Amino acid sequence: VLARLRFMAGELAPVIANALSAHGPIDVRLMMAQALHMGDEGHNRNRAATSLLLRELAAAIVRTDERERAARAIEFITGNDHFFLNLSMPLAKCMLLAAEGEPLSSLVTVMARNGTDFGIQLSSMPGRWFVGPAQMVRGLYFPGFCENDANPDIGDSAITETCGIGGFAMAAAPAIVQFVGGDAADALATTQAMRRITLGSNDAWTIPALGFAGTPTGIDLRKVEECNLLPIINTGIAHKTAGIGQVGAGLVNPPWECFHAALAALAADARGCI
Amino acid sequence: VLARLRFMAGELAPVIANALSAHGPIDVRLMMAQALHMGDEGHNRNRAATSLLLRELAAAIVRTDERERAARAIEFITGNDHFFLNLSMPLAKCMLLAAEGEPLSSLVTVMARNGTDFGIQLSSMPGRWFVGPAQMVRGLYFPGFCENDANPDIGDSAITETCGIGGFAMAAAPAIVQFVGGDAADALATTQAMRRITLGSNDAWTIPALGFAGTPTGIDLRKVEECNLLPIINTGIAHKTAGIGQVGAGLVNPPWECFHAALAALAADARGCI
Repeated sequence: VLARLRFMAGELAPVIANALSAHGPIDVRLMMAQALHMGDEGHNRNRAATSLLLRELAAAIVRTDERERAARAIEFITGNDHFFLNLSMPLAKCMLLAAEGEPLSSLVTVMARNGTDFGIQLSSMPGRWFVGPAQMVRGLYFPGFCENDANPDIGDSAITETCGIGGFAMAAAPAIVQFVGGDAADALATTQAMRRITLGSNDAWTIPALGFAGTPTGIDLRKVEECNLLPIINTGIAHKTAGIGQVGAGLVNPPWECFHAALAALAADARGCI
Repeated sequence: VLARLRFMAGELAPVIANALSAHGPIDVRLMMAQALHMGDEGHNRNRAATSLLLRELAAAIVRTDERERAARAIEFITGNDHFFLNLSMPLAKCMLLAAEGEPLSSLVTVMARNGTDFGIQLSSMPGRWFVGPAQMVRGLYFPGFCENDANPDIGDSAITETCGIGGFAMAAAPAIVQFVGGDAADALATTQAMRRITLGSNDAWTIPALGFAGTPTGIDLRKVEECNLLPIINTGIAHKTAGIGQVGAGLVNPPWECFHAALAALAADARGCI
């Protein structure tokens, strides 16, 4: 892990920065839209977007860097189908930052987990965490691993679901059921269920199999409580011992505690405004 | 067109040959399988497979060629989402060549059109054409063009449908309906309809949205006649004036004449064997 982080910081980042300077900005939101038409959901399946990113950058990498450094950068990007997760997460974060600070809003702007706690934040109370215990992921394990190896839900990647992709866009990625379990009908049903707890749909990110309907976007705390329906998250399963890394992938929900606590705080906030 | 053909022969082909020598063979059949999980159908939508091919070859291109030649080759490949059609067509042809020469077989091993005639061949009579008039494609036109500009159905690319991809695998590519017309349900229905006229399914090429069922493969002349159902082809629409090129994309069928003629010949062949 440390060797890779050093490579990313010391070699890959400058190569990509050089290439981007020559190429100009990349419209990552548009790339995500294309990937949703190519079987990605932007959290647990990023093969298409990773491929599109490499297509977009490869010639500029070749032109702006020394041959062997260019080849190593290309190999690193292509060597992991999840490379684009490094972009879909900050993309989602940037979009949600723009939604922070709306008074009395019940929009969920952050979902994140540290392996012990699961926390959410609301648009109306930026920076204030409402937490509950991180849950176990239900999914498929890589060969040689089983449930006894798994850590509770961990990581910042649930920002993708918070933004309407990942598990919320699972209907765009029926092939992912081979990775997380279930069947193609489950993938369609999951996206449709998430419409019940979201404020709208993102017309810039459409799902062909659902007649090009937009991804269900903007988790509304009140709808979660009213429908008694938790957000669903497509995620990796980390080993409980540090250093081993990912051992599987599956589906997980946040704990109810964080929504109940947020609702109580929002109600108190509303009473204070009367 | 001529400038591009000269570039492909004189510069691109040597660059790819060098890269392939360094990289080793590419399993194009596996790449096609992955692309069917990424919204391609291998005839009229090849964005995923083109991206996967570039990913696979890019580092080797960088390492085996001069910088500017390498960059130009990468740009050419990425510059056209249909680049992989240059591989999916010969892939289909190679697979079907292996099926030629089976005595009395009613398997269709070739479908091709020259803009005037549509011809098919049977496994049992390799090299013998059964022809009828090329049909008009029903589809969507690029801005500025309409039906009056269209040439009748033309090209060798229907070898993909003959091999079970293209229109036959349309359920894998719901986004293609934005390009050829119709809706996502039509894409599913088309693939399912083609099962009625095919001999089996290709378990190496699966369609996630249909529960990972294999692509309907091997057009059986007798089933076409019994079901009164023609093969469907996803194809480009060429302008009727040479040199203008593609003006749209859509769906087309072969003419009945070629199937009726092939059936008569097969019957005569069978009588000769009694």
